[in-house]
Parts: sequence; C-alpha cells; structure tokens
Amino acid sequence: MKTLFLFMIALAPVLPASAQQPLVAKKPKNIILMVGDGMGTAQIFAGLTANHGTLNLTRCTAIGFQKTQSADAFVTDSGAGATAFAIGKKAKNGAIGVDAQEKPQQTILETAKKNGLSTGLVVTCSITHATPASFYAHVPSRSQVEDIAADMLKGNVDVFVGGGRNHFAHRKDGRNLVQELQTKGYQIADSTADLSTIKTGKLAAFTADLEPKKISEGRGDLLLNGTTTALRLLDQTKKGFFMMIEGSQIDWGGHENQTNYIVGEMLDFNKTIGAVLDFAEKDGNTLVVITADHETGGLAITDGDMQAGQAEGKYVTKGHTGIMVPVFAYGPGAEAFIGIYENTAIFDKMMAAYALRIH
Amino acid sequence: MKTLFLFMIALAPVLPASAQQPLVAKKPKNIILMVGDGMGTAQIFAGLTANHGTLNLTRCTAIGFQKTQSADAFVTDSGAGATAFAIGKKAKNGAIGVDAQEKPQQTILETAKKNGLSTGLVVTCSITHATPASFYAHVPSRSQVEDIAADMLKGNVDVFVGGGRNHFAHRKDGRNLVQELQTKGYQIADSTADLSTIKTGKLAAFTADLEPKKISEGRGDLLLNGTTTALRLLDQTKKGFFMMIEGSQIDWGGHENQTNYIVGEMLDFNKTIGAVLDFAEKDGNTLVVITADHETGGLAITDGDMQAGQAEGKYVTKGHTGIMVPVFAYGPGAEAFIGIYENTAIFDKMMAAYALRIH
Repeated sequence: MKTLFLFMIALAPVLPASAQQPLVAKKPKNIILMVGDGMGTAQIFAGLTANHGTLNLTRCTAIGFQKTQSADAFVTDSGAGATAFAIGKKAKNGAIGVDAQEKPQQTILETAKKNGLSTGLVVTCSITHATPASFYAHVPSRSQVEDIAADMLKGNVDVFVGGGRNHFAHRKDGRNLVQELQTKGYQIADSTADLSTIKTGKLAAFTADLEPKKISEGRGDLLLNGTTTALRLLDQTKKGFFMMIEGSQIDWGGHENQTNYIVGEMLDFNKTIGAVLDFAEKDGNTLVVITADHETGGLAITDGDMQAGQAEGKYVTKGHTGIMVPVFAYGPGAEAFIGIYENTAIFDKMMAAYALRIH
Repeated sequence: MKTLFLFMIALAPVLPASAQQPLVAKKPKNIILMVGDGMGTAQIFAGLTANHGTLNLTRCTAIGFQKTQSADAFVTDSGAGATAFAIGKKAKNGAIGVDAQEKPQQTILETAKKNGLSTGLVVTCSITHATPASFYAHVPSRSQVEDIAADMLKGNVDVFVGGGRNHFAHRKDGRNLVQELQTKGYQIADSTADLSTIKTGKLAAFTADLEPKKISEGRGDLLLNGTTTALRLLDQTKKGFFMMIEGSQIDWGGHENQTNYIVGEMLDFNKTIGAVLDFAEKDGNTLVVITADHETGGLAITDGDMQAGQAEGKYVTKGHTGIMVPVFAYGPGAEAFIGIYENTAIFDKMMAAYALRIH
C-alpha cells in the first residue's frame, strides 16, 4: 500500500503533461466528399432560412473556407473546381481530371481504388457532368461527354448513380457502354428501379437519359436513395471507401437566379447530408467533408422569415462568382479543415487523412 | 519492483482513457472582441484578394457562423447587432444595450468592470455610434447620441478611442462631458496626440469632432495606434480586461457600394487584427473573437486578381442583408466558436469563457 501511494505521487506530474499533449489523430477508414455545386455562404443561408433556422450542416465539428480560383481564371467553372478536389492541382476552366498542362493526373478516387478501397459517385446531374467526371475521367474539355463516359469503363467507380444514360447508350462511335458495363459485372438500374433490393456488387444506376429533373418537378429522393444504396454496397469493403455525392442543381438554381430552385435543391442536399452524417456517426470511422466548387449568381439574402421558412434573394449575375466558399467537416480528421486555404487543399487534406500514397 | 510492474499493468488501461477525455478548457484572462461592421464573407474575400490571397484572419484556429437577425427584423441594424453581442439578448433594430422590451441589460463590458477587469473600446466611427454604444449605453434608439455620450460618464470604459467629440463637448443640455471625464480622472487626447507617450491610467481619445476620416482620405493608423495604446493600458490590470475594437467603416463602404472603400477599411482592420493576434500569441491568455454585426450591400465578388491585388464587386442594395456572417476565434476557448449559432451566442460563449457571473 505504501509502495502504491509513493508510486501515485511519482506519477502525478506525469499525467497532466500526457493529457495535454496532442493526440495522434485517428485515421478515417472512409471519406465522403459532398459537393453542393454553386453552394456559397448565401445558398447555405437561403436553405437554412427556408428550413426554419437549421440545417444538418450544423452537426459538423469543423468549419473552414476554400479559395476557388482556377489555373487560368479568378472565377472558376465546375470542371476546374472539382478537378482541384480530385487531383490536388489547379486546372484551367473546363478541364476534367487533368492539370494546367492538360496532363492526366490520378484522382483521389482512382488512388483509393488502387489501394483496395471501394468507390462511388452519386449526383443529381448526368454522371458525365463536370463535377463527377473530374473524379474518373481525364479530358481537356468538359464538353467531351462521350469521352468522359468512355473513361467510366476503366472500372474505377464501383457504384454510380446519376443521369446521362444517352452518353453511354446512344453514341456517335456506336458503342453501347451500358452493355459494356453489364459485361464488366455492373448491375444496371434506371430511375424507376427499387434500389433497396440491391444488396451487393457493382451498380450503374441511370436516373435520366440526360439531366435528372428538378426536385420541384418530381425528382423525388433519387439523391437520398442513391446515397443510402451506395453506402450499403461500398461499406462491405473491409479497407473502406471513397465516395463523392453532389447536390448538382443548387448551381442551376443560381444560374436561373431562382431562389426557390436553390432552396428546393439545398433542402434535398440537406436531407442527404443528414443520412450521411447518421452513417458517419454510427460508423465512427468516416470523415465527411461538405463544400462547394464555387458560388453561383452572386446571391444576396435581402429578406426572409425563419418561422415561415421564406428566403428572398437578389442576384448580380447569371454566372459564377469568385468568393471563397465554406467547408464543413465531421468525423476523424475533421479538425484539419479549419482555416482558409486553396481548393486543392481539400485533396491534400483528404489524402493526408487516408494516409494513402499515389502509386 | 514486482509491485511497481503490477501497478503499471493495472494502470495501463486507465492512461489512454484519461488522454481521450476532453480536457477542461483553459479560461482566458482577457477577451478582445473585434467587429468588422458589415463584414460578411464577401467583404473578407474582397480584402483577402486585395491583400494578395491572405489576411491575418487565417491565423485564427476556429471558424463559425452567426445568424444576425434582430428581435423585430430579418435584416438587422448595427444597434441590435452589437447589442446581441453586448447583452446576449435579441433587441429591436436601432436599440442600444436594451432588450426587446427596451429594458436596460448589463453588458459584458459592464460585467467585466464589476468583476475588477479593465475595459476598452477602440473604433473608427464616433464612440457614440451604434456598435461601441451598445457596450456602455442603454437607450431605445441609437439616434439619442447625447444620451449615449452621457452614459459614458458612468465610468465603465477605462480606455476609449473614437470620434464624436461634439456629442460630449457641444451639447443641447450645456454639459461639457469632456471636462467631466477629465474631472473623473480621464486623460483626454485628440487625433494629433502621440498616444505612445501615455503609459498608464484612464484615457478618452477623441479622433474626430464627428466621424473619423476614411482610411483613403488620410485617417492613418488611428485604429492600430488606438488599439496598441489600449492594450498597453488595459494589460496592467491583474484580473484581465475586456476590449471591443471595431473596423467601423467597412459598413460605410458597403452602404456606398464602393469596393475600394471596403477594401481600404478591411486592410486597415486586418493590420489591427495582426497586432491583436501578436499580443494574444505572446500573452497566451487572451481570447480573440473576430466577427461582424451583419453584411452590407449584398456584395458579390465578380472578378479579381490575387497577384495584382484587385477585387471587383457588384451590389444588390445600399442597405444591409440578412446572410449569416463568419466568426473567427483565437486563443483559450476559441474552439467554442465553431458552429452555426445566433449572434446572442457570441455573448454567451464569451461569458462562459470568462466564467463571469452577472451581479
């Protein structure tokens, strides 16, 4: 007993010092990048106002800002914006998965795949659109949609949900990439499919021939259902997964200067953010990063009513603007996303969290 | 030795658990609240662009957002905005240091003073203007500038630097509050005074008869010099201090829809933020919170050039907007400012950091 007492005395000064030292950060097994296309501070606040003062974003434990400028323009497009997240290098506007010299660069999704992780993309635009394309395709111009679709055949994406079936099935080169995907083992689904019946394996779910509908025109829970399906399929890989989910049409509401369109898409994205954070909370091993590629419209929130859920907006442009956009993060490694940094740092921080090396 | 070994084994599972538990946060001795009036995400980004891609704000270790809505309006004015920070309650637009029922409430500055801390206000508007007034005055309307000046005579502010001398010296009631301040032991200075010669004691520094000049019209380092002087004087109190520093005219640039005006005032504020963070870094015992009362102008950053330091803005209004505004924090307790919350939570979080009770 005396020995014990003396030992406790000896140990006393050690404990506080040990407790004060920074802990080695836990590495996440899974990373989910969620992109609200065109979702600046104003779009988030329009959604929050419409949602009576709250959003699932408030569950995040780290907030930062990123600078969206591209290699050749102060105001980026979605290609260069998403490419910065995907390859960690600034690209020229319109570029997809290539650096400023138009040289293809391995994306974080491809790196994850090479390291034995599973991968997924779930979007509310065509799967060949700039944001998702930047994670699996490598072309100088986002307009090369059939080349982008062809890059999907490299098989790096295990599960994808989005529109753009025509770019796979009705092509100038006569190839039927939907059949080719099937041959490679993908299950093929359309927007009417009950995704909940799909329990395992690879999945190509085409939610539209070209672009999926607006949420206000009856798109329904395609984003939420696509996301929960992808989570179910991808989470079966022991090594973990990388997934990118996009609320694609927040941007289109900005281009149309339609606040109701923005709000509808924000609330759809918010619902999916809730499901993703629920997964991450339960899993405890998933880093969620939620950000935008740029702001669209120069939206200002000129009036509103939190109780009624009404937000009024005014715009200065039908295009994008150059303002920095917020970053929200949750889960192991989230604290690295506090600060103001370049959009390319989203890639760097995700790669550092995984501790994966490009090879 | 055997006892020691067995004890270490017994202790082993305890150590990691102890290390994983959240540490009791260190309480700051001093709190410095810095308000960029009208400084939304866009104003910050205009300043960052003009400053070639960086700002002293990037030194902060925590970022959040606050909702600026007042008790009676979606779009707040500076009175209700600053009153939320000062008393922790929503007030009606135009109110100063009173709650929504126009009942005076003890401000954080007054509470600090009652608890033996010293207090200071340094601004680039008149010291009777809405933001500084909200910390020491209690009136239903910000237009009651002579009543506001009279509240300064209660002696709760040890050091203040700002314009508005006429509201003290040339009054309808015939009182000369400058003389009264002198009688109460305040040193009196004007904009030409060399503040560096003032080494101790109370200080009332009037930098203009009404509103101080724009930075572009030769105001010089009044904000920086006022701040370093206040820090020198207030830091002599063992119990610590509370100070509010305002970059007041960022808002006025927004009202004029003049991006150059905003940028000039942002960079002046940025310089002072640098000095404050230098103090806090050296001191190690100071919490710095940097935020805005609201956004002004609905500013969009439509183009720019980081290398050249040029930002181009467009506006939707000559008034304020309702968008949430960023919060940056540094020092002990900074992590509490991560999240999205009401402007009144700035008061709550500062009070919790001090662990002061209103009495």
